[in-house]
Amino acid sequence: MKPIKQDQTTMHLPPTVAWVEAAPGKPGSGRLRLLDQTRLPNREVYLELTRAEEVFAAIRRLSVRGAPAIGCAAALGLAAALGQSRATEPTEFLRELEKVAEYLESARPTAVNLAWALHRCRKAVARALAEGEPQVAELQGVVLREALAILEEDRALCRAIGDQGMTLFEGRTEISALTHCNAGALATGGRGTALAPLYTARERGLTVRVFADETRPLLQGARLTAWELRRVGIETTVICDSMAAQVMREGRVDLVIVGADRIAANGDVANKIGTYGLAVIAAYHRIPFYVAAPYSTVDLAMASGRDIPIEQRPAEEVAEIGGRRMAPLDCSFYNPAFDLTPAELVAGIVTERGVLRPPYDQALRELCRQE
Amino acid sequence: MKPIKQDQTTMHLPPTVAWVEAAPGKPGSGRLRLLDQTRLPNREVYLELTRAEEVFAAIRRLSVRGAPAIGCAAALGLAAALGQSRATEPTEFLRELEKVAEYLESARPTAVNLAWALHRCRKAVARALAEGEPQVAELQGVVLREALAILEEDRALCRAIGDQGMTLFEGRTEISALTHCNAGALATGGRGTALAPLYTARERGLTVRVFADETRPLLQGARLTAWELRRVGIETTVICDSMAAQVMREGRVDLVIVGADRIAANGDVANKIGTYGLAVIAAYHRIPFYVAAPYSTVDLAMASGRDIPIEQRPAEEVAEIGGRRMAPLDCSFYNPAFDLTPAELVAGIVTERGVLRPPYDQALRELCRQE
Repeated sequence: MKPIKQDQTTMHLPPTVAWVEAAPGKPGSGRLRLLDQTRLPNREVYLELTRAEEVFAAIRRLSVRGAPAIGCAAALGLAAALGQSRATEPTEFLRELEKVAEYLESARPTAVNLAWALHRCRKAVARALAEGEPQVAELQGVVLREALAILEEDRALCRAIGDQGMTLFEGRTEISALTHCNAGALATGGRGTALAPLYTARERGLTVRVFADETRPLLQGARLTAWELRRVGIETTVICDSMAAQVMREGRVDLVIVGADRIAANGDVANKIGTYGLAVIAAYHRIPFYVAAPYSTVDLAMASGRDIPIEQRPAEEVAEIGGRRMAPLDCSFYNPAFDLTPAELVAGIVTERGVLRPPYDQALRELCRQE
Repeated sequence: MKPIKQDQTTMHLPPTVAWVEAAPGKPGSGRLRLLDQTRLPNREVYLELTRAEEVFAAIRRLSVRGAPAIGCAAALGLAAALGQSRATEPTEFLRELEKVAEYLESARPTAVNLAWALHRCRKAVARALAEGEPQVAELQGVVLREALAILEEDRALCRAIGDQGMTLFEGRTEISALTHCNAGALATGGRGTALAPLYTARERGLTVRVFADETRPLLQGARLTAWELRRVGIETTVICDSMAAQVMREGRVDLVIVGADRIAANGDVANKIGTYGLAVIAAYHRIPFYVAAPYSTVDLAMASGRDIPIEQRPAEEVAEIGGRRMAPLDCSFYNPAFDLTPAELVAGIVTERGVLRPPYDQALRELCRQE
C-alpha cells in the first residue's frame, strides 16, 4: 500500500486526507484514506474507504472536517466509489457519477467546498465526454486525476499561505502565537491556513510556541490543534477560551492568528465563535490579530459582516459535555456557530497571494482584480 | 424537623446552608443542613450532618463552596459536632472545640472565611469562659448562637448588597444582565453578591433576564448560576464563555455584574478566570461592568492587582471534561484560577455600604474610614 501523502516534506504533518492504492496503478484498487478525527486526540485511527455510503457517513459524522479537507475527501471518495463501477457504457457511468456526487453532496449541505469539489469532478468528466469518446476506465481516470489535482492545489495553497505569512515574523527568531479552533493540517489537504505560517516558521528554524484556545463548545482547539502541533513537536499550551486575556496580560503572546469562514468586502471576518472576543482582547493589549485564509474565502457580494448569516447550532452542544448534562433542564441556551470580527480589529489578512493590510476594502478589490 | 431557613422571603432561593433541629430546642438534636452542590444541577440533594468528619468531607469535596457559604457551614458544622459532645467539664469541652475547629479549618486551608468563622466561635466561647463559670450545655449554646449570628449577618449583608445595587437599575423596568461564575445564593448564606441586585430587582417587580457564562473549567455558571436563577423563575440563557462578545454585539446585554475574590486599594479586582476578558469586551461595547462584593473583600494592603497572587490549579481541570481526556497527553496546560481586572474597566463596585464609583482609591479609602 503506497500512500500518496499529504504535505510532509520535513515535518510529520498528519495525513488528513490521502489516496492509497492496494495495487498501484490497478484500476479499482484505489481508496480514500482518512484520519478519523472523531477518535482524536486519544487514538490515531485511519479509515480506508471505497463505498459511497462509507464516504458519506465519514463526512457526516465529522471524521473529516474543515472546508478544504472535506472538499478533498469528497473528490477522492467519489473517485474511489467510481473506481468500483461496473458500468460498461459511458452514459451508464455518467448516471452513476451524478447519483454518487449528489449523494455525497448531501452529507453536509452547507459545506461549500464539498459541492465545489464534486462539481469540478463532474465538469472534468463532461469535458472528456465532449472532447472524445472515452471508455469507462478512462473516465474513472479523469475523476481520479481531478480529485488528486484538488488535493495537490489545496496543498500548494496552504504552502503559499505559509510562505506569505512569514512576513509577519520578520526580524524574529522566536514567536509565541495564540490561535482559536482548528485551521491547521486537520482542516485542509495541506498544512492548514492559520497554522501554515507557524509550520513554515518552524521549518525555517524559528522557535515557535503556541497557546491553543480549547474552543468550546466542540473543543477543536484542545482535541485537534494541540494534537497536530504536538505531532510536529511544537511547544503547545492548551487554555480555556476565557484565559486568553490573562495570558496576554502576562505578556506571553506576540500575535494571534486564526482562520476564516468568510471575509466580507470591507474586511469583516466570520469565523468560529470566540474569534471576535479574542480580537477585542488582543486589540486592548495592542497584540496584532491576523486572519489567514485562501483568497476564495473572500465574498465580495457581502458588503460587510452584517450581511453574513450566523448559523445557530443545537443547544445540546452547550448543555452537555461528553454526553452528560451540565446545566439545568429548564434554562435556555444560545449557540451561534460563528461570530463576526469587524475589520478594524484585524491587523492583516494572510492569503496565498500576499498579506493584506487595512484599509481592506481597497486591498480586497485589488486582490480580486488579479483574477 | 423545623428548618431555620435561608433568605427566602418572597423567592424560593436555595437553602444552601441551614440549621435544623430534630427536636426543636433539645440540645444535641441540631444538624447542619447543606444543599449538596456536587449533585447540581441534576439532583437537589440535602445533607444533614452532625459528625465533624462528615462536615470536613462535605467542605473538602465542594458540597458547599463560595467563601461566605463555607464560613457559615463551618460554624454551624462546629455547633452540630459540639452538640454531640460528651464532655462534662468546660476545660474538656474547650479542648474538644479546639480540636474540631482546627480539623475543620484544614478542610480548605486557603479559604479565609472558613478560618474566620471558626475563630469567631472560639472567641465567643473564650469570652463566655472569661465572663463567668458556664456549664458545657451553655457553651454549646454559645457556639450555636455565634454560628447562627454568622449566618444571619451574611444574609443581611447579601440583602444590603441587593438593596444598594438597585441604584444601578434606576429608571429601568427591564434588565438583561450577563454574569460569570457563581456569586449567588449558592455561594453565600443569603441571596449572593453579584446576583443579589438581580434578585432584589425581581422582587421589586422588574423584569430580569440573565446570560450566564458557563465558566470553564469548572462550569459553575452552567451548573450553579443557571440552576439557582431558574429556581426563582428568572429567564436564564447559558452561553459558552467565548460567546459573550457576540451576545453583546447583538445588543442583548445591558450590564455585566460579577463577584470578587479580592479588591485592591486602587480598585483592581481579582475574580474567577474569565472575568478580565469579559471586562475588556464589555468596555469595547460600552456596556457597564459592575463588581458586587462585601466590603470585607477590599484588601487595602494590596496597592494594586499586581500584588495579588494568582493561584494555579491542576492541569486536569482543563485537560479533562467529565473525567474524559480531551487534549493530547504531551501538551502543556495553563490553568490560572483567577485573573485581574484593572480598575479602569470597572464602572462601579457594589458593596453593602453603597455603590463606589471611580476613582476607586479615594472611594475605597473613604469606605474604610467608616469603619
